[in-house]
Amino acid sequence: MSRDQAFLDAARALGYSFDGEIKRGGNYAPLVRVGDTIYVSGQVPRVADTLVVTGRAGADVPLEQAQLAARICAMRALALLQRSLGSLDRIRAVPKVNVYVQSADGFVQQSEVADAASELLHAVLGAAGAHARTSVGVFQLPKNAAVELDLVAVAHPD
Amino acid sequence: MSRDQAFLDAARALGYSFDGEIKRGGNYAPLVRVGDTIYVSGQVPRVADTLVVTGRAGADVPLEQAQLAARICAMRALALLQRSLGSLDRIRAVPKVNVYVQSADGFVQQSEVADAASELLHAVLGAAGAHARTSVGVFQLPKNAAVELDLVAVAHPD
Amino acid sequence: MSRDQAFLDAARALGYSFDGEIKRGGNYAPLVRVGDTIYVSGQVPRVADTLVVTGRAGADVPLEQAQLAARICAMRALALLQRSLGSLDRIRAVPKVNVYVQSADGFVQQSEVADAASELLHAVLGAAGAHARTSVGVFQLPKNAAVELDLVAVAHPD
Repeated sequence: MSRDQAFLDAARALGYSFDGEIKRGGNYAPLVRVGDTIYVSGQVPRVADTLVVTGRAGADVPLEQAQLAARICAMRALALLQRSLGSLDRIRAVPKVNVYVQSADGFVQQSEVADAASELLHAVLGAAGAHARTSVGVFQLPKNAAVELDLVAVAHPD
Repeated sequence: MSRDQAFLDAARALGYSFDGEIKRGGNYAPLVRVGDTIYVSGQVPRVADTLVVTGRAGADVPLEQAQLAARICAMRALALLQRSLGSLDRIRAVPKVNVYVQSADGFVQQSEVADAASELLHAVLGAAGAHARTSVGVFQLPKNAAVELDLVAVAHPD
Repeated sequence: MSRDQAFLDAARALGYSFDGEIKRGGNYAPLVRVGDTIYVSGQVPRVADTLVVTGRAGADVPLEQAQLAARICAMRALALLQRSLGSLDRIRAVPKVNVYVQSADGFVQQSEVADAASELLHAVLGAAGAHARTSVGVFQLPKNAAVELDLVAVAHPD
């Protein structure tokens, strides 16, 4: 199965479509490529015009919802890479993923939240989805998003 | 207009000079270059010996002041690059910018704060200022700074 | 003195051994190398099965304990690089270090915490330990760790 098909399957499993515009909330680029290295901007769990998961993990946002948020962030990053490269098959590696979880006092399951994004990257990209990762619990995120995720990808040479 | 002139114009518009030493608060390098990739350390809004904007965005720091802080951080990063490279014209790209906003509970305009830095990078660097970006709201920053910003730049080959 | 010997000396000075498995808390790789660039995952101050320093810097965790945590995080990152490369002498540079400090309200000594990690990198790696750095105070860290640290390293070409 191609990675692009795996991406469609993942979208279907989540129940969301990532066909539309991937909107961002400021004056920056969704991704920038220099050489073969691609920096993808911080993604919040927005689908079309809706921020799907808002609030604090561990307070109004239970673990499962924060994990859904992490998956949506990862799908958005993949959708941006797919459009930029033409196909996810052009990805050589995703060496680093950062996951920021808007956390309640005492919530310490940031790794468990991030695992949902990691598993999705593995499911869609296979071995190329192996990544180093940092996950931390921040105090606030833009637009009250529950999770924000950015990553560094490396493309196969043109 | 050269980028170095645009930098001087931006400094004048802000009302601050970035001619003096760009002080840092610890045992690390202001920037490190490996190959053509340059990592610039986290900058707080310090001019000479004064931290210009301290406090929490959304509490004692209104949005406009947090945006000023973001601009000063970006100017410091540019000043460091200018000194290291001789001229801002040596910058090929600034592919990634991270903006950390010391945030009050419920403040969710981190993107709006970061936009001020993004606009400044575009104004000084033109198309080379296009960047991916991540902005998050942290609980505390060194020395009670309102904003911290770091970035990755890429130089034209020597 | 070789860097590997300096690493052993640093471990002895800390009173901890980094010979065992470097455990991680999720579904990701400890480090990923693409070309000569190596991304090391966020490290918490865990030795074997014990998270050595938990809590908030500035509240239950005094500065000295947070600095110990930062040193252990840095040693873990070095241990991972040593195992991956065969020797720390294979490191060309460590251009970027990020330090996340789980902070109490009003604690603003994140740079002082991070300095402990920076000094350790210099002590073990010499000039190759020079790095750009970002340190911020986050609200929560995985498993209530007091500090998390990640870094980018560059290997000498094979």
